[in-house]
Amino acid sequence: MNFCSHCGNPVEQRIPLGDNRLRFVCPQCQTIHYQNPRIIAGCLPVWGEQVLLCRRAIEPRCGFWTLPAGFMENGETLEQAAARETQEEACARVRELSLYTLFDLPHISQLYVFFRAELVDLDFAAGEESLEVQLFHEHEIPWQELAFPTVGRTLKCYFADRREQVYPIRNEGIAALRPRE
Amino acid sequence: MNFCSHCGNPVEQRIPLGDNRLRFVCPQCQTIHYQNPRIIAGCLPVWGEQVLLCRRAIEPRCGFWTLPAGFMENGETLEQAAARETQEEACARVRELSLYTLFDLPHISQLYVFFRAELVDLDFAAGEESLEVQLFHEHEIPWQELAFPTVGRTLKCYFADRREQVYPIRNEGIAALRPRE
Repeated sequence: MNFCSHCGNPVEQRIPLGDNRLRFVCPQCQTIHYQNPRIIAGCLPVWGEQVLLCRRAIEPRCGFWTLPAGFMENGETLEQAAARETQEEACARVRELSLYTLFDLPHISQLYVFFRAELVDLDFAAGEESLEVQLFHEHEIPWQELAFPTVGRTLKCYFADRREQVYPIRNEGIAALRPRE
Repeated sequence: MNFCSHCGNPVEQRIPLGDNRLRFVCPQCQTIHYQNPRIIAGCLPVWGEQVLLCRRAIEPRCGFWTLPAGFMENGETLEQAAARETQEEACARVRELSLYTLFDLPHISQLYVFFRAELVDLDFAAGEESLEVQLFHEHEIPWQELAFPTVGRTLKCYFADRREQVYPIRNEGIAALRPRE
């Protein structure tokens, strides 16, 4: 950040009165420009014994498999964001969304939130950000070709939980994760 | 937003290629300025049968009672943010944090996240943003003087769940809430 988005003056970094962190502050109009973590919401779409994955058409991790997910927008609920991303990336409709995994990624200031969800029907297809979209049984999951650790971890949890038929909601840090698992 | 925070040029609103929403875009350097929901993280600090509330020293809702909570900062986990806010507002240390309630407030683009937590000791006091900090038994809760619906709802859930000794994690919209409950 170089300039004040309110008045256009160059900003400077200082700790505002009553604060304890460096912020971008405008010396002209005094606006404090806070920067906060962003939320990525997505779904684990389920169809019987299978789950739906998308192969990414965009960077980062172009060509790798992911669960449909993306940045939550202003004016949305978590669930609406997760369903919208599923619609956009997999052209798929989901129902019965149920909060499932929350991953803290403090090193990139992101919070990942996944919902378990039922596919409404088999009417899915690659959206603009996907190369292909496909249903996978557990033994077919391309574990070595997953795009993000959060995706692998959510899938691992899901297949383990499914055997127990209990799906606890989890909040974990990324530090607990190995690459692509 | 009036000016590009990267190059200082006036921004304009348009729908970027491949997008479907109006964004602030800089016609000079082409930076797209996304705006996303913010996360507010907090704790429900418990000491035996009592819970800890703070009376707000700042607007909004100055003078009303709240659970310690505030904006999550870049570089934090949810749990770290909740514990830090508890330290800042109630000068209290907590342990055994457990994810509890998540509230979507799409009308103000916020996500509230509360953890249940144990107070480490009785060494608490009003922080800079609090007028006073006090332990309450259930029958003492100032229900009519709570600052936010998310606080009342979290407390209601907690006392109901405590009777069952089961604390399911909840994700609800604010639409389900009545004022101050």
